[in-house]
Amino acid sequence: MYELLNKISSPQDIKGRTLTELNAICDEIRQAIINRVSKFGGHFGSNMGIVETTLALHYVFNSPIDKFVFDVSHQSYPHKMLTGRAFGFTDEDSFTKISGYTNPDESIHDLFNVGHTSTSISVACGLCKARDLRGDKENVIAIIGDGSLSGGEALEGLNVASELKSNLIIVVNDNDMSIAENHGGLYSNLRLLRKSKGECECNLFKSFGLDYRYIDNGNDLATLIGVFNEIKGINHPIVIHINTVKGKGSSLAENEKEKFHSTVSFNKETGELVSINSGETYLSVTGDYILKKIKEDKDFVAISAGVPSALGFGFDASKRAVAGKQYIDVGIAEATAVAVASGIAKNNGKALFGTYSSFIQRTYDQLSHDLCLNNSPATILVSNASVYGFKDKTHIGIFDIPLLSSIPNLVYLAPASKEELTSMLEWSINQNSYPVAVKMPGGEVFSANYRVDNDFSDTKYQITENGEGVAILALGCFYKIGVELYTALKKQGVCATLINPRFINRLDENTLDCLKKNHHTVVTLEDGILDGGFGEKIASYYVNDSMRVLKYGLEKEFIDRYNPCDILRENGIEINSIIGDIKR
Amino acid sequence: MYELLNKISSPQDIKGRTLTELNAICDEIRQAIINRVSKFGGHFGSNMGIVETTLALHYVFNSPIDKFVFDVSHQSYPHKMLTGRAFGFTDEDSFTKISGYTNPDESIHDLFNVGHTSTSISVACGLCKARDLRGDKENVIAIIGDGSLSGGEALEGLNVASELKSNLIIVVNDNDMSIAENHGGLYSNLRLLRKSKGECECNLFKSFGLDYRYIDNGNDLATLIGVFNEIKGINHPIVIHINTVKGKGSSLAENEKEKFHSTVSFNKETGELVSINSGETYLSVTGDYILKKIKEDKDFVAISAGVPSALGFGFDASKRAVAGKQYIDVGIAEATAVAVASGIAKNNGKALFGTYSSFIQRTYDQLSHDLCLNNSPATILVSNASVYGFKDKTHIGIFDIPLLSSIPNLVYLAPASKEELTSMLEWSINQNSYPVAVKMPGGEVFSANYRVDNDFSDTKYQITENGEGVAILALGCFYKIGVELYTALKKQGVCATLINPRFINRLDENTLDCLKKNHHTVVTLEDGILDGGFGEKIASYYVNDSMRVLKYGLEKEFIDRYNPCDILRENGIEINSIIGDIKR
Repeated sequence: MYELLNKISSPQDIKGRTLTELNAICDEIRQAIINRVSKFGGHFGSNMGIVETTLALHYVFNSPIDKFVFDVSHQSYPHKMLTGRAFGFTDEDSFTKISGYTNPDESIHDLFNVGHTSTSISVACGLCKARDLRGDKENVIAIIGDGSLSGGEALEGLNVASELKSNLIIVVNDNDMSIAENHGGLYSNLRLLRKSKGECECNLFKSFGLDYRYIDNGNDLATLIGVFNEIKGINHPIVIHINTVKGKGSSLAENEKEKFHSTVSFNKETGELVSINSGETYLSVTGDYILKKIKEDKDFVAISAGVPSALGFGFDASKRAVAGKQYIDVGIAEATAVAVASGIAKNNGKALFGTYSSFIQRTYDQLSHDLCLNNSPATILVSNASVYGFKDKTHIGIFDIPLLSSIPNLVYLAPASKEELTSMLEWSINQNSYPVAVKMPGGEVFSANYRVDNDFSDTKYQITENGEGVAILALGCFYKIGVELYTALKKQGVCATLINPRFINRLDENTLDCLKKNHHTVVTLEDGILDGGFGEKIASYYVNDSMRVLKYGLEKEFIDRYNPCDILRENGIEINSIIGDIKR
Repeated sequence: MYELLNKISSPQDIKGRTLTELNAICDEIRQAIINRVSKFGGHFGSNMGIVETTLALHYVFNSPIDKFVFDVSHQSYPHKMLTGRAFGFTDEDSFTKISGYTNPDESIHDLFNVGHTSTSISVACGLCKARDLRGDKENVIAIIGDGSLSGGEALEGLNVASELKSNLIIVVNDNDMSIAENHGGLYSNLRLLRKSKGECECNLFKSFGLDYRYIDNGNDLATLIGVFNEIKGINHPIVIHINTVKGKGSSLAENEKEKFHSTVSFNKETGELVSINSGETYLSVTGDYILKKIKEDKDFVAISAGVPSALGFGFDASKRAVAGKQYIDVGIAEATAVAVASGIAKNNGKALFGTYSSFIQRTYDQLSHDLCLNNSPATILVSNASVYGFKDKTHIGIFDIPLLSSIPNLVYLAPASKEELTSMLEWSINQNSYPVAVKMPGGEVFSANYRVDNDFSDTKYQITENGEGVAILALGCFYKIGVELYTALKKQGVCATLINPRFINRLDENTLDCLKKNHHTVVTLEDGILDGGFGEKIASYYVNDSMRVLKYGLEKEFIDRYNPCDILRENGIEINSIIGDIKR
């Protein structure tokens, strides 16, 4: 097993091989993908479909002199295997040694850390520009999936590329699927191009001024090698539109494309997922709430930008069918999702747009200019905004508090329990006064052991335990840690005050002032970076008082593939450590 | 003069008029545009070109029931005149009563505050969605210029629009110009469409799945009215591609399209600009530096996203010609500009991307994911990042400090003088260690009365006056205010310490600790909002010490058409007021 693959330590090792051998390598790569993904989870369908393309690229071009950029990295596994990292797929003990994304720390064949979509063409244009000024001649190749074309940066990139007038090869891996089904008019053009074998006159890529070539059987190695050989060293930008089969080589992935786009580990024979959490999660609570709201209120619209799972675990095809016209997927176009939400709210509809914290970054200007400048009362749901969320440095969700806190008019709320999560969503969706963002809690579901309000119009922190000396301001899902701290202090005879602040970016000065009367120490706990965060605002508020403020949150850095417990410990977020700080 | 225009208080007043009368109204509108812009400045060329289109739209459709969204508002003047605001153009005393942008506070015919490009189609999709769910039938019309099509949000919008399957009219006002010349491959398609009278098969809009209609003489009222009447109430999205003449009706604006895109006041006969500042400005210092650097260093590339002026006053066509291949304009595509810069830096080139603070917002994700996650050593120049910069609420540049401060790896520098500005740019462009952003100072040029360093590798605040008791940390262009404060305190017998912090988002803990020895009060001064800003970090640092911290900066709000002196006073940034606070 993996006889050929194990001998490949660099792309040089596939040069000069026969077509039979190369096809055998493709088979081994597919086995290795299945091996890793079935046991460890990861991106499945797109990697299976791009095997031949990747092999042909490495066979024809000369990486790392020729430069490959894999968009979003969802299709970078075969590339990793051909560049000395097959062990990360074939050897179970080595799975954690490689990242699921391109990563320059792993290999000189990876130029960028990439986990967000639609960036490859634009960064490739930069690689070309530097090359051209130097007078070098290497090939620059961007590999992008059809799903990623719906993102604005990719479309901007197509527009800019055609002005380059020098070598740039844009490989469009068209498997007729995004993470879920594709959304948007450009996909009708891709369909037409596939149907006409690239011959139809109306051509998205040509309309951006680009040269174009179509490969109908994108899983045929000989054809791919032939075309790449012809266009190697081309003196202008060209799009190579390749028709591939998502999931190719796995009947499971070919048949259930959405389920097996990205997956947790599963049974190789039956396709049954190894359930990681069959119980209630914050995502399932959210998904249930949204579906209920859709049924109850005909003016309510839930918006996704290509990741329906952010709206709730299991917001799957069947639930989307129930939602009907009250559900919109704009494709991987977060900016437009916020603008659509603002338009709906402005026309007296009720809109909620939900996505991951890491992708909310892509909407700062739309949140500010399209939404908040216009005070449009739409709701933004920020999921995976937690140290317990995505762990890869390309997807970590720990920057949302400073990101959203400085935008005027926006109210950013942190529910501390599942009941408060739905209560805040319900209030936000029904109110008409301001744009509201809600930070979905991370970690295990916490059920409120305190009274949950249903009106959040006034900036009022909630005192859940009245004590003295020490006040614990425990924000969002870190309220649980606040409860633990309160309990541990109580055991030591300290009767602290425990507060659920609820409002991330608005100070309840009344409550903060009251604390001065009989408290000497305020402890802040927040699930995100301290820099520009909640604790800094509290500390800044008390700076000229005698109040001592101890802030707990995360350091500002791109942490990667971490264990949340380790990160919390490294940042001093441990009950005993905090009690030590308080007593010091 | 303005006989007809003065009688129009709403679009109802033009219904039923004869073509002759309507054309006479067009003439008056043009005179009124020239009147305002020549005396007051503003957007000129695009407004002159869209006169007939706007009149035809209001003649045929029924605003505000039918809903108009003007992209970027650069072409909203005729609309303003037809909706009761002609006085803002005809009457010099009323110029300040209306904004240069659409503004719901002014009129029910303005749905959104809009000043950023490329947003209209996406928000219009939202208006449509809410309408469709309600079962209403009003027309929704987005009016967008060809220049704005280069922005990702607009292209995303085209993609999303075609899935609507209901009424949406996208009017593309094609005058073959952006602010400067257009950049990007899509413009070759627009040219082809114009040349073929909309008949060529390869069609950008159709490739996004949209219906399409072309109007060759976009300044012919009868034709426009005819077409709008035909498509009124259409049951699916359609693009009406209108070929207009930028500057139509003013030989000045028709001949010098870039100069008269947006202009300061000018002589109506000669076109001579009324110079507002013939001396040195921070923009001129920047432009001179960048041109010099381009000549000296063949690996250096300056990048603009449609606003070359952000790279330096007078980075005009002649200077761009000198720059040659070392200058890139990516169109109004800020996201891609950052990605291109990252690509250049990754391939060992030297890249600087400059834009306005208000537009830097559009690049948060690219700064984080494409640039800083990859630690690409490119330089980001943030201009108009100042209370002295743009004054309209759609363009204010006072949010950059919290925006940029929370991104890991990024070093954000604040030069306090013209010498430090060029020194920081030079250091940043030549270094290879991290991404750097530089905040161009605002206000009048200040020449360094202190030693300017040429290496900013170490986070070290610069003590320019050594004193005791009070320490003034005066950031960036507010260093000037720091000098004034220092001088005023000295006159009162207080010998303060004056510090030029230079580093916006990194704390020099050594210096901060040293201050504790013989200072009781720290004053922070920053040109931006306090929320999440520099002063908050300093206050937070000192919270558990006896140091008193007085923070001066701006409130977090969308301020509009303000006088900087008023804003500074309202925020307590006046020497006497600060001294009062210190003594209190």
